Amino acid sequence: MPPEKTFHMTPDEFRRHGHAVVDWIADYYSRIESYPVLSRVEPGQIRASLPANPPVKGEPFDGILENIEKLILPGITHWQSPNFFAFFPANASGPAILGDLLSSGLGVQGMLWATSPACTELETHVLDWLVGMLGLPQRFLSTNSGGGVIQDTASSASLCALLAARERATNFASNRRGCDGRLVAYTSTQAHSSIEKDVQVAGLGLDQLRLIAVDENFAMRPATLAKQITDDRRAGLVPCFVCATIGTTSSNAIDPVPEISRTCRDNNVWLHVDAAMSGTAALCPEFRHIHAGVELADSYAFNPHKWMFTNFDCDCFWVADRAALIKTLSILPEYLKNKATESGAVFDYRDWQIPLGRRFRALKLWFVIRHYGMEGLQHHVRRHVELAQQFAGWIKEDERFELAAPVPLNLVCFRHKGGDEVNQGIMDRLNRSGDLYLTHTKLNDRFTLRLCVGQTNTEARHVERAWKRIQEEATQVS
Amino acid sequence: MPPEKTFHMTPDEFRRHGHAVVDWIADYYSRIESYPVLSRVEPGQIRASLPANPPVKGEPFDGILENIEKLILPGITHWQSPNFFAFFPANASGPAILGDLLSSGLGVQGMLWATSPACTELETHVLDWLVGMLGLPQRFLSTNSGGGVIQDTASSASLCALLAARERATNFASNRRGCDGRLVAYTSTQAHSSIEKDVQVAGLGLDQLRLIAVDENFAMRPATLAKQITDDRRAGLVPCFVCATIGTTSSNAIDPVPEISRTCRDNNVWLHVDAAMSGTAALCPEFRHIHAGVELADSYAFNPHKWMFTNFDCDCFWVADRAALIKTLSILPEYLKNKATESGAVFDYRDWQIPLGRRFRALKLWFVIRHYGMEGLQHHVRRHVELAQQFAGWIKEDERFELAAPVPLNLVCFRHKGGDEVNQGIMDRLNRSGDLYLTHTKLNDRFTLRLCVGQTNTEARHVERAWKRIQEEATQVS
Repeated sequence: MPPEKTFHMTPDEFRRHGHAVVDWIADYYSRIESYPVLSRVEPGQIRASLPANPPVKGEPFDGILENIEKLILPGITHWQSPNFFAFFPANASGPAILGDLLSSGLGVQGMLWATSPACTELETHVLDWLVGMLGLPQRFLSTNSGGGVIQDTASSASLCALLAARERATNFASNRRGCDGRLVAYTSTQAHSSIEKDVQVAGLGLDQLRLIAVDENFAMRPATLAKQITDDRRAGLVPCFVCATIGTTSSNAIDPVPEISRTCRDNNVWLHVDAAMSGTAALCPEFRHIHAGVELADSYAFNPHKWMFTNFDCDCFWVADRAALIKTLSILPEYLKNKATESGAVFDYRDWQIPLGRRFRALKLWFVIRHYGMEGLQHHVRRHVELAQQFAGWIKEDERFELAAPVPLNLVCFRHKGGDEVNQGIMDRLNRSGDLYLTHTKLNDRFTLRLCVGQTNTEARHVERAWKRIQEEATQVS
Repeated sequence: MPPEKTFHMTPDEFRRHGHAVVDWIADYYSRIESYPVLSRVEPGQIRASLPANPPVKGEPFDGILENIEKLILPGITHWQSPNFFAFFPANASGPAILGDLLSSGLGVQGMLWATSPACTELETHVLDWLVGMLGLPQRFLSTNSGGGVIQDTASSASLCALLAARERATNFASNRRGCDGRLVAYTSTQAHSSIEKDVQVAGLGLDQLRLIAVDENFAMRPATLAKQITDDRRAGLVPCFVCATIGTTSSNAIDPVPEISRTCRDNNVWLHVDAAMSGTAALCPEFRHIHAGVELADSYAFNPHKWMFTNFDCDCFWVADRAALIKTLSILPEYLKNKATESGAVFDYRDWQIPLGRRFRALKLWFVIRHYGMEGLQHHVRRHVELAQQFAGWIKEDERFELAAPVPLNLVCFRHKGGDEVNQGIMDRLNRSGDLYLTHTKLNDRFTLRLCVGQTNTEARHVERAWKRIQEEATQVS
């Protein structure tokens, strides 16, 4: 029987076009420093260059790829440029890109163990590896009562943790009633905005979220937390969830997890620890102190897609008691039933996350760990911290500037002493120049510049040039 | 200054290893039919073959890639095999894989317009294209009051719709109180299990979800829905959300959206339409009738990652009133503020979804639409439906078998007349044989086989062989 008429790309065409895309990416990285880091297009400009209607006939792939250069690149903010110092980084790397390519090629759905056992087992295995690599508590191991899973983002990880906390406090799923108005969640005023969003998604009102005050270093005040929990219990409320942050987004502040975790234990409150960017630092023994206190946490998350050279999306999320998480998120309709699930001998990761479907995310993480080894990962993390500390030193030495917060790792918060307008002016001029990209926050209600050293390819020369350019613009503006 | 010591893959190494991965994938597709479709490993078998500890020193990439064959492939269930007829398909295709590769290479974070304008604008543009391609209502266009966004899965899309419904019914975000115990959500007994999960995530109790009875074709009874809503209102409850399904997971039943949508309009209830797999059929004018009634829906979702040749994850989600969605999901901390956002002239897609971060998902969808054109997409969808209808005809002609549900499109529910054990036996033998993979459901409490024709590369010969093998096993078992 002759093959049927098809519009699909044949394996040989895929080979040819695939090589071209790989070459395009290699070239892109070779010349990435020649682009302005922050895209300069105006709203609507990219759309205006696209055809109003989709094609009726298919187009040759070569032409599609050519369009990337002209139609898409002007609208790209180059997160993979070594001159990207904004927000937190979103690392890519060669092994991660290729691991993700294999995941796309295999095209498996890992919702159940049975729908591709390797997808589930490699993920469980690599997340057990990371428990050791980061000095996390043994109870997070899948071989104990815990286990890890890859979520898309830290937002989703903390949402799952909150839902498990809600379940533990109220037997939510079995009591069939809606969210209890007496539940209370806690985090610091400096925690990521996703916690506020998670709380609302989970059906708690904003009046059920307490934003605990921070100290002069922007870290949660543990005594204030303890008092608030006590007060709330006395008022007949039900404290159920605390999110502590290791490395806040604004200033990289590290909440005092040892004290917080004891308060949570004493009050039977679920403690989630969000170490989205900074957790990666614990790969190095000299920074592992950031995980002090995590041994009492109920759950923990960090994002290799931020600072561990693994493409988005890759948030690693562990729980100490996986039964609590699975009880919260498991629903088993007939069309998903299968013998492996019924045997109880396997993990079905659909029960560890909000969505049902999931791609083979662990491949890229496995590739990264194997390509770099502990040695390579530690080297680059150390180097980033070193460069950030060096930059902080330059700030301290220049009397026009000041540090706005402690610099525990690789994020430097600083400001020109000339006030908010001067700082906004410096930032706008730098970003418009295309030479680098940095962003701001407010600390103590003052406009503060943030420089985060964590992009995969950032080296000394990039940080040195950033400092030179900051000084130049400061001279222009002030 | 000499370059620093680095463990990163250089652009030239990336080129070489990238070509090898592309070649591996091309070879994989060339020989994919030689693998057993359903993986045969036992629980724990894949893990047992992996090293207990992560490497200290990095490993050569060639060796990592070689491991895929030996360590990973045995644990793969081949979703991209043309002999995959299980669940709903999870399509990959050449242009989608390469679009996703470019997305990994560019490595942008599309959380804000400003963090890569092309990521946002291409997504908005392609989702406007799809409104026309699928015959969806004009009010879903971003150029009107609506707009589309790519979510990871249909579960997340329906969760966002439910949250927007909750917001509309109770001004959830501004009233600061927890989820109102009087809210009620509705879907059919045949709707996807994700609706039940969404309801609980959003803080509604299971007592606040009504599973409406279905008719003999497994479609929601609209009169029952209308009466239930009326009864609930009389009881002082607040009906807020209905999810109608176009193509249920069990049997591909199509709820009567025209009647349901009028009931929702009359009662000011948010109507979400879940067309996860079957929406793709509307690319063909002759199947566009499945979208009757959607013109009154508040939101709609379908998954190109199921049946439109676009790699996971790619769920397209539209709302008629984007302001309602954004009001529900927007939180703007200082560190994300920027001039484009403040101008109001742009979409920030973080306000259209639960997570904050997002990758450049629209690239692969754009590549698919351009590679195939409307013509190519229609050809393959038509062909799949034709093959499923042909298979349904064979079932009807063989007196040992019967159809278990109508076959509106590409899913055939059928059973051997010998009872549940015979059907389970046929399925287990087929799946163990490795020749094909199909799954089951229960309809009217009877074990029912499902054969879904939708895998990218499935042709007549694969369906013919499946039928031959089913007949053979039926002879063995009964």
